[in-house]
Amino acid sequence: MSRQQRAQVDAMLRRPTSAPTGPRPIQEIREGFKALMAQMPVPADVRTTETALGPRRALEVEPEGTRRPGTILYFHGGGWVSGSPETALSLTGHLVSGSGVRAYSVDYRLAPEHPFPAGIEDTLAAYRALLERGEDPAAIVFAGDSAGGGLAVTTCLAARDAGLPLPAAVLAFSPGLDSTRTGASMDAKEDADPIFTRAAVEYTGAMYLGGADPHQPLLSPAVYADLAGFPPLLIQVGTNEILLDDSTRLAARAREAGVDVVLDVTADVPHVFQVFAGFLDEADEALERATLFLTQRLRAAQRGDAASVGVRSRQYARANSTRLP
Amino acid sequence: MSRQQRAQVDAMLRRPTSAPTGPRPIQEIREGFKALMAQMPVPADVRTTETALGPRRALEVEPEGTRRPGTILYFHGGGWVSGSPETALSLTGHLVSGSGVRAYSVDYRLAPEHPFPAGIEDTLAAYRALLERGEDPAAIVFAGDSAGGGLAVTTCLAARDAGLPLPAAVLAFSPGLDSTRTGASMDAKEDADPIFTRAAVEYTGAMYLGGADPHQPLLSPAVYADLAGFPPLLIQVGTNEILLDDSTRLAARAREAGVDVVLDVTADVPHVFQVFAGFLDEADEALERATLFLTQRLRAAQRGDAASVGVRSRQYARANSTRLP
Repeated sequence: MSRQQRAQVDAMLRRPTSAPTGPRPIQEIREGFKALMAQMPVPADVRTTETALGPRRALEVEPEGTRRPGTILYFHGGGWVSGSPETALSLTGHLVSGSGVRAYSVDYRLAPEHPFPAGIEDTLAAYRALLERGEDPAAIVFAGDSAGGGLAVTTCLAARDAGLPLPAAVLAFSPGLDSTRTGASMDAKEDADPIFTRAAVEYTGAMYLGGADPHQPLLSPAVYADLAGFPPLLIQVGTNEILLDDSTRLAARAREAGVDVVLDVTADVPHVFQVFAGFLDEADEALERATLFLTQRLRAAQRGDAASVGVRSRQYARANSTRLP
Repeated sequence: MSRQQRAQVDAMLRRPTSAPTGPRPIQEIREGFKALMAQMPVPADVRTTETALGPRRALEVEPEGTRRPGTILYFHGGGWVSGSPETALSLTGHLVSGSGVRAYSVDYRLAPEHPFPAGIEDTLAAYRALLERGEDPAAIVFAGDSAGGGLAVTTCLAARDAGLPLPAAVLAFSPGLDSTRTGASMDAKEDADPIFTRAAVEYTGAMYLGGADPHQPLLSPAVYADLAGFPPLLIQVGTNEILLDDSTRLAARAREAGVDVVLDVTADVPHVFQVFAGFLDEADEALERATLFLTQRLRAAQRGDAASVGVRSRQYARANSTRLP
């Protein structure tokens, strides 16, 4: 039963070996995260192909069966310092398998070797590459988990500010959206969170900052982003997360900016609980809701709702001049 | 396109004849609401039967095709002073048609003839009647719109406080959850709301209060309810509503109480925009998301997750002694 499953997931994550971040050498963090994520099953009905998207490597993830129109541009998690398209393949694969839509998962540059804004430059370049191939922006959905959920949001901000047409939707699983670390959950949820501590996220967060000022929209969108003109947004998060209020605050900003936003909170589950699909019923159900959301947005693109989003994006770009630093 | 649809809905509702409440005689309010809601199409693949549930009349709404296990207990809107199972039949019918699950829509007593807590007594009695027939509470979902969305929440509170096993889920469309009228949106959204004004909801709200103190959980759950032990909750609301913050505050309370909660906000649409299904794409999409949510919760009941909810409810009831006044 689900209550038992939630407790089992929590106990499993509290085993000391599973903590993906902490005051350890970066290579050890990367190896630990890779080993943890390698345990998560990938749906059997997807196939992967090595490719490139702009300047960076990408993994194309396709459904074995009938492919539906559209593209998921996926950004993996790992605190901006670890992870790869392969570590997120369980999540990307479930979205592809559930929706029938192909994904590209971007191998963006990581800190500390490449701090902010290198990652966003790469994800934005990947989006530009899709547009330059002639893909309809209204048939593209940004998705990501954790740091990659943050990138799904900030890449969309960067695209808007660059005057690009916007994607059809943004999906974020437990996104990291606040480098100022000022959410109440940062301390209130520290005991409940089986994965993260404030110290751990500040340790890797400093690598990503690389000395940059966290008080800016692309580093702390939950606190500073103007989401005007944003496409519909789905945020899924657990209550056992110090990052919970990254999500709740972004959702409030989205509401205030007139953006369609679903804030989907599951109780008593950890950061990016969707990786437990197949074991935790809440994970499968959350992925099913995410899949419906992205399917609805891609259907709208086929109806032709797209144009209005493009117009809004261009109007915003004309009225604003912020750019990637 | 959807942007145009949203604008058309807004313009249509601003025609003076469509305002469903205001400082008018109660009979005129009821006739106006009935005429407005009679325009909303009912899916062709449902059939209705007159029945009773506890002391009150109810309308059974069944799918024409294969019926899936479970029961929706539906509570219509109308400000606690108007409406009937028939005025909500478009909404109830869409949930039944989409899910294949049968619904009972309760003809609870209305103010001013029967002020608070008469309506909750009737909806709770309807739920008791279902339980006494042997229906599995974990296969029952409470749903409602506007005042009925409020009743979906408060009936669940009353059931919990009475020590009854709880339903599998609560679905609320633009619920009325605050008789203290203290949400910021009450004033901030008054120009954006094409249906309600503060004066209008205070006029009918006073009839429902009938002199009762609004500062209590069953009248203002968004402000006072302890949602501990609550089943998963889906709230859908538009941003063009003075009642928006009834929803946002209840969702925050649910998160804090460890309840699974989806807060699903659609921008630039009015109160209970789901009635525009078939005309407004956002309405159809919202109903599709609501249908998935209830289907997932009923599936969980069939898996046997139910027991834990019942246990939580009984534990809560032992530790608390609040009762219907």
